[in-house]
Amino acid sequence: MEFSAKQIAEILNGKVEGDDKVMISDLSKIEDGTPGTLTFLANPIYTHYVYTTQASIVVVNEDFVPDNPIKSTLIKVKDAYSAFAQLLEQYNQIRLDKKGISSNAFISTSAVIGQNVYIGDLVFIGDNVKIGDNVKIYPMSYIGDNVQIKNNSTIFAGVKIYSDCKIGSNCNIHSGVIIGGDGFGFAPQKDLVYKKVSQIGNVILEDDVEIGANTTIDRATLGSTIIHKGVKLDNLIQIAHNVEIGENTVIAALTGISGSTKIGKNCMIGGQVGIVGHITIADNVKIAAQSGVASCITESGSVFQGSPAFELVKYQKSYVHFRNLTKIVQRIDELEKKIKLLEK
Amino acid sequence: MEFSAKQIAEILNGKVEGDDKVMISDLSKIEDGTPGTLTFLANPIYTHYVYTTQASIVVVNEDFVPDNPIKSTLIKVKDAYSAFAQLLEQYNQIRLDKKGISSNAFISTSAVIGQNVYIGDLVFIGDNVKIGDNVKIYPMSYIGDNVQIKNNSTIFAGVKIYSDCKIGSNCNIHSGVIIGGDGFGFAPQKDLVYKKVSQIGNVILEDDVEIGANTTIDRATLGSTIIHKGVKLDNLIQIAHNVEIGENTVIAALTGISGSTKIGKNCMIGGQVGIVGHITIADNVKIAAQSGVASCITESGSVFQGSPAFELVKYQKSYVHFRNLTKIVQRIDELEKKIKLLEK
Amino acid sequence: MEFSAKQIAEILNGKVEGDDKVMISDLSKIEDGTPGTLTFLANPIYTHYVYTTQASIVVVNEDFVPDNPIKSTLIKVKDAYSAFAQLLEQYNQIRLDKKGISSNAFISTSAVIGQNVYIGDLVFIGDNVKIGDNVKIYPMSYIGDNVQIKNNSTIFAGVKIYSDCKIGSNCNIHSGVIIGGDGFGFAPQKDLVYKKVSQIGNVILEDDVEIGANTTIDRATLGSTIIHKGVKLDNLIQIAHNVEIGENTVIAALTGISGSTKIGKNCMIGGQVGIVGHITIADNVKIAAQSGVASCITESGSVFQGSPAFELVKYQKSYVHFRNLTKIVQRIDELEKKIKLLEK
Repeated sequence: MEFSAKQIAEILNGKVEGDDKVMISDLSKIEDGTPGTLTFLANPIYTHYVYTTQASIVVVNEDFVPDNPIKSTLIKVKDAYSAFAQLLEQYNQIRLDKKGISSNAFISTSAVIGQNVYIGDLVFIGDNVKIGDNVKIYPMSYIGDNVQIKNNSTIFAGVKIYSDCKIGSNCNIHSGVIIGGDGFGFAPQKDLVYKKVSQIGNVILEDDVEIGANTTIDRATLGSTIIHKGVKLDNLIQIAHNVEIGENTVIAALTGISGSTKIGKNCMIGGQVGIVGHITIADNVKIAAQSGVASCITESGSVFQGSPAFELVKYQKSYVHFRNLTKIVQRIDELEKKIKLLEK
Repeated sequence: MEFSAKQIAEILNGKVEGDDKVMISDLSKIEDGTPGTLTFLANPIYTHYVYTTQASIVVVNEDFVPDNPIKSTLIKVKDAYSAFAQLLEQYNQIRLDKKGISSNAFISTSAVIGQNVYIGDLVFIGDNVKIGDNVKIYPMSYIGDNVQIKNNSTIFAGVKIYSDCKIGSNCNIHSGVIIGGDGFGFAPQKDLVYKKVSQIGNVILEDDVEIGANTTIDRATLGSTIIHKGVKLDNLIQIAHNVEIGENTVIAALTGISGSTKIGKNCMIGGQVGIVGHITIADNVKIAAQSGVASCITESGSVFQGSPAFELVKYQKSYVHFRNLTKIVQRIDELEKKIKLLEK
Repeated sequence: MEFSAKQIAEILNGKVEGDDKVMISDLSKIEDGTPGTLTFLANPIYTHYVYTTQASIVVVNEDFVPDNPIKSTLIKVKDAYSAFAQLLEQYNQIRLDKKGISSNAFISTSAVIGQNVYIGDLVFIGDNVKIGDNVKIYPMSYIGDNVQIKNNSTIFAGVKIYSDCKIGSNCNIHSGVIIGGDGFGFAPQKDLVYKKVSQIGNVILEDDVEIGANTTIDRATLGSTIIHKGVKLDNLIQIAHNVEIGENTVIAALTGISGSTKIGKNCMIGGQVGIVGHITIADNVKIAAQSGVASCITESGSVFQGSPAFELVKYQKSYVHFRNLTKIVQRIDELEKKIKLLEK
């Protein structure tokens, strides 16, 4: 699709300076702009690029006054960043606008499918599944028996959702995500053999949850593993059985949360963090990347680091000394020598 | 399916107290029990819930004597926990009781398939594959050429098993697991380019192995990567080429074992542990989460922590001092001042 | 397939000692050799095995003179290791020699497919995809709209490539890899809710790139996430949006690189390393396993360790002292006692 500067100015409620007939078909970064693309200038650090960019159109703030001639057509708007984000979103909606139910999808006759859905080729939908309106399920996703997916959620290619799990509305689940695999529960026997504990619970994702590629969320032994409203999980995260993650908490890649742990609301958890099982983390807690949390964090707003983790400020002070340990030991050597002299 | 208290008491060889006609169709946790569900009371800590639970049936130990009136029907058995685990297992067997070979599976004519199997839609089974009796293969799993899967194993949706690998009996392999991808072997050339070393070995899983979602096990360069009998691997674990893991060892999520390392029997390895290549870990070793093992552990029963890891007890003592390093340095500052005074 | 010692000697330009009619059909390690297999002896540490191996043929260096009788047929060549690697590669080429386009693949009519390709069962190829010559795509891989894959690349079973991504020539992408999922970008709102930032960029893999099983590479917010020529990524690695990885850099399993970070050429990054976003790592840098890199590394050839990471040599010295902290504190205790005595 192609749009003229004039058309885009209308969408953004902006004013054109330059050729309003120039056409664009893609978006670009200002430093990488090529002819036929539109970019934006919001951060003053990038201002010098506006004079050299090859982009056909640059969206700028309405108070922007160039110091030099500019080849690109300008579109002046109130807030260039917001305007550009709006274009990004519209572009994405067009890009992801898949529709229709493939005749090459395998859908149980007992499944109930909503209006205006996309179900791609090679999708499997089991018995008694309920799919809401405007749901998109890309090719090669597996939706087990009795699963429910509410309105407006998108399941990208190759997601596997085991039976009985529930997905809220407006969720995005990326490729390779596994929801509802068995919790890691084994009872040691007298002969050191482990006996599997059956895992008959499920996973519940509330509304507005995003799950990154290849993340795994295990079903509860009994009851539910619960990811509350607005939680955002990055790629390759492990959420064990019976975990509960509070509203609007965000977790970065490669982090693992062990069984039955409860994380509060609005927490920020860095990448490669490990959290042991059966503990509680308060609301608004921040945990630095690669930390290991070995016990409850009870105070809202705590900031932790280390393995095992303690208060970040203290960790960082200790770590400065750790880096200096060779010098510290030299000081002790020196003290011992001096003491020896004094003792004589 | 619905069962009456009377029917369940017969299965469990228990005694009903209360309405033996009450029906249940699901299992629940005692604190979350709802009408129509059955729960259990084994741990005395939870005793107070028995007076408030909404569950229709509670399985209790035969010596349990209530202090207050109870709404639920009780079933008294010798060991309430075992009885409940037995119900869990039976429930799970019913839930997972899939049968038959889909006409939408793609099965090579040279494959040999056992009795009483489940092969779901969109499964691919390559040339010369051998599938034992009672094997279940869920939709979208890929079984490469010459793979063998022995009796009673379950392959959940979307597993990929490369050619020539061997899976024992009674194994459970969860969604997204990749078995037999190439080992990470490259020979550096003079121009800093890496040349791939062909990886022609395979992976062998012995009997009773469980592999969690999205775990990857690489094929050997030559010979076999071997996961011995009874090993349990959690989700998102990396097992490199030519690794060998001893019987009944359990490993938690996000751990990585590098090439050619041999792990002993009955080890317990925490989450996010890293183990370098070409080393040996003795039997019965425990390694704390997030540890990094950089050299052989030769003593059976060792317990290690840290990165690089050493004896856990020593690590934890050192870590207490690490947390106190600011105070320790203050003590040294103080000593230096005092020495200076004394030296005058 | 079976080959005689004579045939193999001709391929390797070697000289047979012993029965030149003995047949082999597989390759083996010298310590595990069985009749009907060929092995090699290059490392003198393994020389004693040549007298006991059951392998039918052993490839040895031309200057090898046995001290004892050998049952196996020997093939003497200039460089036994290289000769064996050559056989490995030829064996692998035969093993992986898949051809033809399955009638059970789902290929958009607008896709352009090269010569001599393999496209397996249950593959999905979207609109406007371009596939080069000699490309192999194994079953259950998903190639989104507008994706390009250049000549001689292999996509193993169950790879998912989102729309608009570009794959170079001679790449190997292993099962479960996800290329082009959304970057983890969310703008915090006033009510602590996160609003998704649309991710409309793509991923570019240049030539000769290898990606291990279940690794994830996110698409750029705008522009491209770029994996340059010759990069080798192990399994379960996370590459975030807008990251750039320089030529011939190798990265071990379970490492995560955060958004917009640029890694130089010829770097070696260990397993379970974490690197924060928006930083630059110079060329030829080595980072030890489990390290956390929190700021730019500007000097070419630096070697770093720790979390946060600093120079490896300094880290290792500090860590020796860390292990001794209990003794170090005892020395301080002792000093304090002595000072007290002296002060009296």
